[in-house]
Amino acid sequence: MKVNLDRIKNNLYKLGEFGQTNNKGITRLPFTEDYKKAAEYLKCLMESLELKIREDPVGNIFGKKNGTIAEKKKIMFGSHLDTVKNGGLFDGLLGIVAGLECLYTISENDYITNNSLELVAFNAEEGSDLKGTFGSRAIMGLIEIDENYKNILKSYNITPEDIRNSKINVDNIVAFLELHISQEVSLESKNIPIGVVNKISGITRYKVTCYGASDHAGSTFMHNRNDAMIGATKLILKINEIAKNIGGKFVATVGVLKVYPGEISVIPGKVEFLLEIRDTSQERIDSALNEIIKESNKVSENEFEFELIIKTLPMYMNNDLIKRIKNVCELNNLSYDVMTSGAGHDAKSFSHKVPSGLIFVPSKEGLSHCKDEWIEWNYIEKGTQILLDTILDIDNNTEL
Amino acid sequence: MKVNLDRIKNNLYKLGEFGQTNNKGITRLPFTEDYKKAAEYLKCLMESLELKIREDPVGNIFGKKNGTIAEKKKIMFGSHLDTVKNGGLFDGLLGIVAGLECLYTISENDYITNNSLELVAFNAEEGSDLKGTFGSRAIMGLIEIDENYKNILKSYNITPEDIRNSKINVDNIVAFLELHISQEVSLESKNIPIGVVNKISGITRYKVTCYGASDHAGSTFMHNRNDAMIGATKLILKINEIAKNIGGKFVATVGVLKVYPGEISVIPGKVEFLLEIRDTSQERIDSALNEIIKESNKVSENEFEFELIIKTLPMYMNNDLIKRIKNVCELNNLSYDVMTSGAGHDAKSFSHKVPSGLIFVPSKEGLSHCKDEWIEWNYIEKGTQILLDTILDIDNNTEL
Repeated sequence: MKVNLDRIKNNLYKLGEFGQTNNKGITRLPFTEDYKKAAEYLKCLMESLELKIREDPVGNIFGKKNGTIAEKKKIMFGSHLDTVKNGGLFDGLLGIVAGLECLYTISENDYITNNSLELVAFNAEEGSDLKGTFGSRAIMGLIEIDENYKNILKSYNITPEDIRNSKINVDNIVAFLELHISQEVSLESKNIPIGVVNKISGITRYKVTCYGASDHAGSTFMHNRNDAMIGATKLILKINEIAKNIGGKFVATVGVLKVYPGEISVIPGKVEFLLEIRDTSQERIDSALNEIIKESNKVSENEFEFELIIKTLPMYMNNDLIKRIKNVCELNNLSYDVMTSGAGHDAKSFSHKVPSGLIFVPSKEGLSHCKDEWIEWNYIEKGTQILLDTILDIDNNTEL
Repeated sequence: MKVNLDRIKNNLYKLGEFGQTNNKGITRLPFTEDYKKAAEYLKCLMESLELKIREDPVGNIFGKKNGTIAEKKKIMFGSHLDTVKNGGLFDGLLGIVAGLECLYTISENDYITNNSLELVAFNAEEGSDLKGTFGSRAIMGLIEIDENYKNILKSYNITPEDIRNSKINVDNIVAFLELHISQEVSLESKNIPIGVVNKISGITRYKVTCYGASDHAGSTFMHNRNDAMIGATKLILKINEIAKNIGGKFVATVGVLKVYPGEISVIPGKVEFLLEIRDTSQERIDSALNEIIKESNKVSENEFEFELIIKTLPMYMNNDLIKRIKNVCELNNLSYDVMTSGAGHDAKSFSHKVPSGLIFVPSKEGLSHCKDEWIEWNYIEKGTQILLDTILDIDNNTEL
């Protein structure tokens, strides 16, 4: 059974039209009209496959094809339908279209699996005030709701009841598989088509506030200033230095920064920025944070405040699934690399409760979360074939 | 003739109510409802003095009291009615209320001047996309309108015709006087109640853009990044260092900064910030800018772009007026300092075409453009008295 690259291309481009911005990439943010239109189109495709379609209260889309043996369980696979602002064509969407292609291929070969197969397109995987991997965490029952989060949910017209009702029964899930763009350079640089992920980095995010004294930018001498911008920039450079020294998969990023009051002729009295640290070792993250907090007292006179926003621990993929994916690669004569993932994924949410596997295909120059994100078509064909063959392997073999 | 401090206080607090925010200071931005309400209330006060009231097409408010001799000219005085976001009570408003107080005092003493006296409250003096000292530059005919500026004007419902119609005849203006909060520390630290300004700093503003490469913040290793945030912060620190080394009245500020795309999990591909440099010497500003541009090639690998937004040259106050203000201080037994102003003022716009004088009163700890801006009441009383006595001195003496 071979997947059909033309059909994959066609579906990627069709679904990729939703959220297209003029030459700036794709913006398909969760709960927006563009997201809803893409979801509707996906349901159309699922209907053509006669899948049993379901949308849950948080916007995840499910399409299920029943297996032959009623008492058998289900194999799930998929990825997310949302994108970052000005993102690319493949991040998330590839895993959905590849999953769809597996179902097309199985159908047109009149093949019938023992287990049911369920494709899922997740909502709000990308970082937002919903805190990332929202859809998959919701169905795994991993979302904790405090008063603040309740207000955030409300702004999306979601109730705590919706979250509870989205949770699915995990007992009858044999495995979850996700195909995803690698978003890093190593696979491409070694010309290796498949990455088999064994561990996903933990993500720790802090809101860092630097306090200064707001004052007139024309009449306050340089030596009389307490400029929050200067304190903040000094700490950002120190964070960058610490992260570079640790090296490896350890990364620290400041992607959001706000200046108060944010006037051209006013010395900043406050600067807030969001710090994100990722690594496969939580100890290394915690120790780097301690160093950053300690350094904040040294780099400048400004006062700093650190507020934890999110801490998701590194998670392991299922060892048996890793072996099966490797084996399937060997049967297909494809080279692979066992690797860690710096990015979080929906497979990470599943790995808390279900045997989960994550397959990477190389991204061009490691680019992702931008319009220039790209994957060579032959890698997409190979990755989708590995996804299909792994699904069939799980279906045909002993229980995990 | 003595000014009345209670009336000054009362009028400051009354007019200061417009734009009050909860404990964050006063936000009375140009062309807003709060600005318009304050303008209406000011007109009420002007009416009680039987002034001839006029509002021009750009929102400046004039109140004129005729002099005895028809062929005589007019003495103008005032300041601006708008504030920065979360600004203080005195910046701008003091000059209006003090001017009003001069007219009250003259009226209740049944004194009649030779020249007409005209109080003016300017709109949009503070830095905005209208580029600061907007109202006073409009009446002096100093506004240059290109296509971009035309669009900015349009967003405020102003036409180029409005700008042309706002220009006033300068031939019959004897002098312009402004009383203003000093916004710096030196007067208070020496316990000197009056500053006599001889020169106002030039202001040069640039939009600086730092280019990097947007990429995934989880999966792009530190050594593979081209992070615009890091380039921008390095240059900001270098600018701060250059400004500190020059010292004196030379100041450089980054009060506005925007990150693109501005997502927590995306490495910034572009950072834009606004750089403002002020000094009493334009040569020093220009040479510092050359150094900054040169350093931008050294501090990081990132590409930088510099776009000039505004360049207003340093301007001198009128020497004869400086002498008169000093003389009036001596007659009142008040100490004074002749000083330069780091901040731009409406008096600067007038100084292009009309003999202009600028009087400072000490601000507490030099604070301004923030809610904690303060002036001791006795300084306000003294400053207003000097303004009144200078107006009368000009009125009584030979032509400037």
